[in-house]
Amino acid sequence: MVTTTAVRRGPRSGPDRHRTRDDILVAARRQFAELGYERATLRVIAAEAGVTPRLISHYFTSKQRLFVEALEIPFDVSVMFGGSSDLDPEQAGRHVATVVVGVLESERGRQTMIGVVRAAASEPEAAKLLRGVLLERLIGPIAAVLRVPDPELRAGLMASQVVGLVVTRYVVGLEPVAHCGPDRLVSILAPVFQHYLTADLEASDAPLSA
Amino acid sequence: MVTTTAVRRGPRSGPDRHRTRDDILVAARRQFAELGYERATLRVIAAEAGVTPRLISHYFTSKQRLFVEALEIPFDVSVMFGGSSDLDPEQAGRHVATVVVGVLESERGRQTMIGVVRAAASEPEAAKLLRGVLLERLIGPIAAVLRVPDPELRAGLMASQVVGLVVTRYVVGLEPVAHCGPDRLVSILAPVFQHYLTADLEASDAPLSA
Repeated sequence: MVTTTAVRRGPRSGPDRHRTRDDILVAARRQFAELGYERATLRVIAAEAGVTPRLISHYFTSKQRLFVEALEIPFDVSVMFGGSSDLDPEQAGRHVATVVVGVLESERGRQTMIGVVRAAASEPEAAKLLRGVLLERLIGPIAAVLRVPDPELRAGLMASQVVGLVVTRYVVGLEPVAHCGPDRLVSILAPVFQHYLTADLEASDAPLSA
Repeated sequence: MVTTTAVRRGPRSGPDRHRTRDDILVAARRQFAELGYERATLRVIAAEAGVTPRLISHYFTSKQRLFVEALEIPFDVSVMFGGSSDLDPEQAGRHVATVVVGVLESERGRQTMIGVVRAAASEPEAAKLLRGVLLERLIGPIAAVLRVPDPELRAGLMASQVVGLVVTRYVVGLEPVAHCGPDRLVSILAPVFQHYLTADLEASDAPLSA
């Protein structure tokens, strides 16, 4: 049997350059998700991507930098808020819940989020890197879209529920949350996101509108 | 300078037996919280407790067993639901939010929960152990108290928000969630817990009552 796998030894040029870089990112995401930040060494990631560790250093300079680049938060804020202006504010919670559950139910989105949460929960250095990524790529853009007081706090509260869902449903597999159907989950989460998005967070626990 | 620290070499009898066992549990909680399940070795825990690793094996038989025993979920379900019968159902969400935030703001409760979440998020074996502990000590008792459909799902949803809060507020330190005052946090979370506790989870995203 002939195997066609070969280790690529040097940087490429042209279109191949992007493919190699993407291969490394895909391998990094998978290894960070599986092993966590510390145990996913450049050597392991290089082996999975079929390149040398030196090539990873060439493209990304350091493991920290590779982690930040690989940490592609899978939520597209412009999709989440449906172009922002044409989204009915009273439907925002349901819309966000639909997008969030949809991303988490896709293999890639789930894998990315598991990697993000695992790294953040277990390793202080990864948590610090993640904090910066979340603020820059998620909290900031969401805050810019929301026309309500305390947009950063609202974005952070939504993030807390999403993170908790990732841990209980996908990492721990806590039943029956783990096997709750996606549509039902959207309906359950919609009023919670609506609350975090639009409720008067200064008021005491007044009835929430969905 | 004379040091008074001495390593205790053998099992004790009488009241000291309990003290030694408790010392080991306290050390285990601290080390699991700080290092995670895998890196917190019996040797490290023994050193912190001032005993021999052999003594830990004597009391707890294995690291798995020590982890399960040390995993004292800091939420007392009877406190959480205020004796269950005399708690106004419409105030249940606020009451649970008050208890949850109170526990997380105490050093011991926070440390325990960080340990629990870290271990579960990063290590499959710990996640499996935790799933059993959560079902037996938290989800089960809560489900027994709730006189609503789907009590396990409700308990699991509440757990998901608590876990997410632990990760974002205490582990990652995501601002401004990390510095939101406890009273404000209780008010923000109260309607969410109320929703998870009492809302019609089959219905679509109808307005939540707090």
